Amino acid sequence: MTTTATTIKDSVHDYIELCPTAEALLDTAPMQRLRYVRQLSTVQLVYPSANHTRFEHSLGVYHLASRAVDQLELDDQLADRLRAAALVHDVGHGPFGHQTEAAIERHVGRHHDEIEWLLTDSEVGDVLEEQGLDPEAVAATVDGRGPLGELVSGSLDVDRMDYLVRDAHHTGVPYGTIDHSRLLYALRTVDGELALEAGNVATAESALIARTLMNATVYGHHVSRIAGAMLDRASERVLRDEVISPERFARLTDSELLSLLAEHEPTADLERRLRERTLYKRAIWARRGDVTDEFVGLEYDHTRSLEREIAEVADVDPAAVILDSPSEPSSPESRAKIVVDGDLRRLEERSSLVAGLDACARETWRLGVYAPEPVLADVQAAAATVLETDAIVAP
Amino acid sequence: MTTTATTIKDSVHDYIELCPTAEALLDTAPMQRLRYVRQLSTVQLVYPSANHTRFEHSLGVYHLASRAVDQLELDDQLADRLRAAALVHDVGHGPFGHQTEAAIERHVGRHHDEIEWLLTDSEVGDVLEEQGLDPEAVAATVDGRGPLGELVSGSLDVDRMDYLVRDAHHTGVPYGTIDHSRLLYALRTVDGELALEAGNVATAESALIARTLMNATVYGHHVSRIAGAMLDRASERVLRDEVISPERFARLTDSELLSLLAEHEPTADLERRLRERTLYKRAIWARRGDVTDEFVGLEYDHTRSLEREIAEVADVDPAAVILDSPSEPSSPESRAKIVVDGDLRRLEERSSLVAGLDACARETWRLGVYAPEPVLADVQAAAATVLETDAIVAP
Amino acid sequence: MTTTATTIKDSVHDYIELCPTAEALLDTAPMQRLRYVRQLSTVQLVYPSANHTRFEHSLGVYHLASRAVDQLELDDQLADRLRAAALVHDVGHGPFGHQTEAAIERHVGRHHDEIEWLLTDSEVGDVLEEQGLDPEAVAATVDGRGPLGELVSGSLDVDRMDYLVRDAHHTGVPYGTIDHSRLLYALRTVDGELALEAGNVATAESALIARTLMNATVYGHHVSRIAGAMLDRASERVLRDEVISPERFARLTDSELLSLLAEHEPTADLERRLRERTLYKRAIWARRGDVTDEFVGLEYDHTRSLEREIAEVADVDPAAVILDSPSEPSSPESRAKIVVDGDLRRLEERSSLVAGLDACARETWRLGVYAPEPVLADVQAAAATVLETDAIVAP
Amino acid sequence: MTTTATTIKDSVHDYIELCPTAEALLDTAPMQRLRYVRQLSTVQLVYPSANHTRFEHSLGVYHLASRAVDQLELDDQLADRLRAAALVHDVGHGPFGHQTEAAIERHVGRHHDEIEWLLTDSEVGDVLEEQGLDPEAVAATVDGRGPLGELVSGSLDVDRMDYLVRDAHHTGVPYGTIDHSRLLYALRTVDGELALEAGNVATAESALIARTLMNATVYGHHVSRIAGAMLDRASERVLRDEVISPERFARLTDSELLSLLAEHEPTADLERRLRERTLYKRAIWARRGDVTDEFVGLEYDHTRSLEREIAEVADVDPAAVILDSPSEPSSPESRAKIVVDGDLRRLEERSSLVAGLDACARETWRLGVYAPEPVLADVQAAAATVLETDAIVAP
Repeated sequence: MTTTATTIKDSVHDYIELCPTAEALLDTAPMQRLRYVRQLSTVQLVYPSANHTRFEHSLGVYHLASRAVDQLELDDQLADRLRAAALVHDVGHGPFGHQTEAAIERHVGRHHDEIEWLLTDSEVGDVLEEQGLDPEAVAATVDGRGPLGELVSGSLDVDRMDYLVRDAHHTGVPYGTIDHSRLLYALRTVDGELALEAGNVATAESALIARTLMNATVYGHHVSRIAGAMLDRASERVLRDEVISPERFARLTDSELLSLLAEHEPTADLERRLRERTLYKRAIWARRGDVTDEFVGLEYDHTRSLEREIAEVADVDPAAVILDSPSEPSSPESRAKIVVDGDLRRLEERSSLVAGLDACARETWRLGVYAPEPVLADVQAAAATVLETDAIVAP
Repeated sequence: MTTTATTIKDSVHDYIELCPTAEALLDTAPMQRLRYVRQLSTVQLVYPSANHTRFEHSLGVYHLASRAVDQLELDDQLADRLRAAALVHDVGHGPFGHQTEAAIERHVGRHHDEIEWLLTDSEVGDVLEEQGLDPEAVAATVDGRGPLGELVSGSLDVDRMDYLVRDAHHTGVPYGTIDHSRLLYALRTVDGELALEAGNVATAESALIARTLMNATVYGHHVSRIAGAMLDRASERVLRDEVISPERFARLTDSELLSLLAEHEPTADLERRLRERTLYKRAIWARRGDVTDEFVGLEYDHTRSLEREIAEVADVDPAAVILDSPSEPSSPESRAKIVVDGDLRRLEERSSLVAGLDACARETWRLGVYAPEPVLADVQAAAATVLETDAIVAP
Repeated sequence: MTTTATTIKDSVHDYIELCPTAEALLDTAPMQRLRYVRQLSTVQLVYPSANHTRFEHSLGVYHLASRAVDQLELDDQLADRLRAAALVHDVGHGPFGHQTEAAIERHVGRHHDEIEWLLTDSEVGDVLEEQGLDPEAVAATVDGRGPLGELVSGSLDVDRMDYLVRDAHHTGVPYGTIDHSRLLYALRTVDGELALEAGNVATAESALIARTLMNATVYGHHVSRIAGAMLDRASERVLRDEVISPERFARLTDSELLSLLAEHEPTADLERRLRERTLYKRAIWARRGDVTDEFVGLEYDHTRSLEREIAEVADVDPAAVILDSPSEPSSPESRAKIVVDGDLRRLEERSSLVAGLDACARETWRLGVYAPEPVLADVQAAAATVLETDAIVAP
Repeated sequence: MTTTATTIKDSVHDYIELCPTAEALLDTAPMQRLRYVRQLSTVQLVYPSANHTRFEHSLGVYHLASRAVDQLELDDQLADRLRAAALVHDVGHGPFGHQTEAAIERHVGRHHDEIEWLLTDSEVGDVLEEQGLDPEAVAATVDGRGPLGELVSGSLDVDRMDYLVRDAHHTGVPYGTIDHSRLLYALRTVDGELALEAGNVATAESALIARTLMNATVYGHHVSRIAGAMLDRASERVLRDEVISPERFARLTDSELLSLLAEHEPTADLERRLRERTLYKRAIWARRGDVTDEFVGLEYDHTRSLEREIAEVADVDPAAVILDSPSEPSSPESRAKIVVDGDLRRLEERSSLVAGLDACARETWRLGVYAPEPVLADVQAAAATVLETDAIVAP
């Protein structure tokens, strides 16, 4: 800590000190853009205080990475790479974060090539090189590859440590308030792998528990999922109609996407509904046991053909039916490594909780069919027939 | 508290219970719009966590008004009017809140008529009437007039109680964290006037102190002021060029205004600078004693003619010079009423701190001249000459 | 909420409003005594900030009970009884809370009769009667019996809601920070039984998780357990030596007990060790699988005879060996009732987590043998032989 | 930050890392004793959550000193001395902190010699020497003398930074929540003197404001003052009666002092009143203008003779009258140094607030006369006569 470091005040971590690389990166347009992408996208429709951005989250992840590299006493070059990767890890995110990810991937391919392209061929890449860093190595780190890349993207990464605490602070839901300092103090490198020192099974479990509870109450709230599904359909439409190239789409801010949707006639109604919060409602809300396996984690094309089928049976506009069947949940945290009697073990081998939390996560799984209020009853009846389920939502 | 009340989770006040009037008002488009207007507009360029919105603030003000009307044991009708006024008090705010207020007022006249018009001739007005409330009476209350209107807008209002605490929570700057519960418990009505019960001079002072310190560190930060001045000039330009009517301008969200600026050639550069945070810089930063009285609190026309004069001397584009000379600060809190020996007294009569805080506020007053980096030195020299000051900012 | 209610500022719940019964009860000596009994007794030897008392906790439990009876819209008489029971629920606790409970019970019998006796035959009982309450009914409520007694002592009680949040605030360990407001909002009475309304499985799980994690990191920390075991032995000694009657013992404060121990020669060394934090150390620290069933949850007499046996083998003073083998953990929260499809269900029937948390709790079970440093190695060897275990603690 | 540092969890500063000197010092009996001395002594009789101790405060002051010496990049030896002094700065405090200070000083002389004696001739002194530190130099630092001693005891010291934030956390009163990180970041040494870098007038003012508001609401609350005055009289009595030597008195814990008072017949009633919170009440409560100058800041002997005079007029036992007339308040913070245009200035020279805050502090000054309820009216009348004031407290 020198007397001249630039510091930024953060509502979660108090003062964040910037290294020269971070200062230079923050001045780029792609980083500044993250001020206009909400961290929790449509969750603010349920938790009105959840307006924090990927910009402040990126600063937080950078801060935790800084503390981790100090704790691990890494050499300067690796430390600088890890800090830089932490700061830029979200720079490739499209508008509304994960909620447009699938649409972007359907039109430009995988996102990992994307971040590599972004870092090597942009203002961010230039800054990295000026600071003596290899953009490709930073991109690999963002993707969890290379030396200690798992610190940025892995089972114990600083990304998750920051978002759990930050999302708790901004939603008011306490479940995400993990003891991130304890996780940082417990970090060790064992033969180049990141692990928690002995005696930290409960510490690791607490992070997994926090995410499971935040999923159930915040991240997976049905109102946010409905809005997200509406965004996905609208995004697909503007991309399919070639209103914008997928590359430019991926660089929009949240509000720029909404403006685009408002100006394109086929998506204008969805945009107005999102803006005024007159969302589609749940017609079907089915647990794992309420539907057959074939309807779990549907491919996009299959989803769309089922939507059309439901619309046909209900005799409504196909745009009035949204089917949303996510994959079954996974829990990367359960693969966190812990030192036990001198050996590395996966958390899932040592913890009696992991299986229960997995079951818990599976229980929060839902297949949803959403429709606008006027046609809700018709869509409900049709969807029950097509999906052979009786998990209808009472009006 | 009934078992069926709708509640909303807030990061500051925890759960907020909604009365039926509040539920109905929240569903209107003008209220939903406030989700897209940041409470502290450009302050997020300095404090990256300050992304909270006028929507969540409105809920907070409603919540405090609810607690106050319970505390004061008001009759149902007045209580409902005060709660409704608290909830809608910001519905007339333009994009970026106070930072476009002056531009809007120059083109549509005073904002108070504005809120009255808004409440009587819109979806919000209809809902108020459906709920048995008189929109004009609610508008008067928002303006601080009528029975206990001062609870919503006055020297002890719930608006200020909420924003101080909320801004502290979201910036991370603790100074705003007042003891709002104590203020609420101390509220009394004395002959229809709102006052604090005896023994609360320190309670009232603490609110005044909090605002003074938040002004010095947060609200009046020069980076936010520069961005605000840039927004004012750009707003003036699109209004003068009749790109949009002032009425529609006043209903834009933050990002809709930025989109508008981006699409109008004369304002596109300002918009890009705001978005990428390559702001104008300070050429002059003058304290009260650094300039003569004639330059304090300048009228708009005078400001613009001085800007042109500076630009001419500097031989630069007039758009490259922004002069910003606010009025001297006032402190409405100092007029808060307190019961002393059975009589009502103004805080300023009883507190030794008010004068010091006023002096303190005057000391944070600054006149600024801002310009883009390439012409900064030229503008600085010219402005020093025109304004007869040597309060230049070292590069 | 009237304008004249007495309020008390609390660091956890902000202002707590007192009803007349509460005001009267607080003025009694038995309630004032709780200011001098730490809520977490010896935990402050590990978490130095954990100095909160049973007095502030009692106020917190009272506050949550007040909110619950409002939420449940109970009649005045039942509400008053429940609030009173919440306030006095800990008045029968001995010094150092649970850590002298076993010693007291060995000498005076069961604690339930104790609280009944206390409330019917003391200053507290008189105040209850003056306030129109039946002390026996209040005693039953403290014990979880009678109408809604489970609100004060049961699977969803306000005691636990307060202590989890308060212990988190004062230790700095975040795991206990449950969403107690959500639990309160979800409370319902169904045929006179307390339950959570539908959709609150995760809410109930979160309380169970919080306690499990607080057990692992705070309540069951070995340093606190060692100090507790030392206190138990010293308490037993002064009671057996009839230095004080068990009735008077149970009314001591923490420090009065320490003074008593300091003045009695056979316990003076234990007291000095507690005061100066030169505690016994772990010789054996055995998991469930490290010892045979016969050594799990030992009766007191069996414990003492094993201690003597170990001392004999080690050839040390019997007072230098402490054996500590708790019962297996239970989780009352898992029996919380939740409305599911209109019926009441136990949490354990609906939650995939309960079994995992139970396993988790069992894993934190440990049998300990403690001894002073100079004889530690000798005691360790002897205990390993006597208990047939190799779970020794490396020095 | 090494991977093996011992850390302690604190409710205010999260994890505190201990240097070897700190670890060794914490193990001494004089430091452990501070676990049993409440930081705010009798304030807990008003704010029931205020049970934090001088032990956790000492850790907090040590932590802030550690951060300061890193920030100032001091050499290892000076850094170690400052950290050690911060940790032990309260080790010389008697039971109930400042509330027995006057009684101790009347019997053993000045406290500064006291801390020097304590550090040079005790277990603490031995540990300091083992760690290569000179106990006399550490004692000087605790007293604010020697190189950067003002960091530990001065106008900007870390003692105050910790107690303001900690007292706020534990009372629930937010006024003390200063931005201590900003104060630390602003610290500079200028020619060996401690100062805040330019631009920090508001930062320094905020600390002064915080203490002024905490004084008014917490530290100077009349209930705590009454209890403190009762303690002072009881302490004087046991010292005068030679029940204990002043040296041993100064080493008691809070509860050991209460036990001592309980066992000495002339002080037993005062002790019972403190323990059961049946305190003396205010007969007179006079502002600065309500009494003549001769009664402001009375010497002890003068105080006692006035008490006897009042008792005589009232015809009551002299022990039933307590007169309490503190000196006028001072504000060391106003002498904090700040860099202004390259020179060091005192805060009071640059701040418009200091005078107002001084006036504010003077306004909270009160002379009190206290007496037990049964003789309150008699004492009130007599005191009004003797002190020639009409500032009586209505019953």
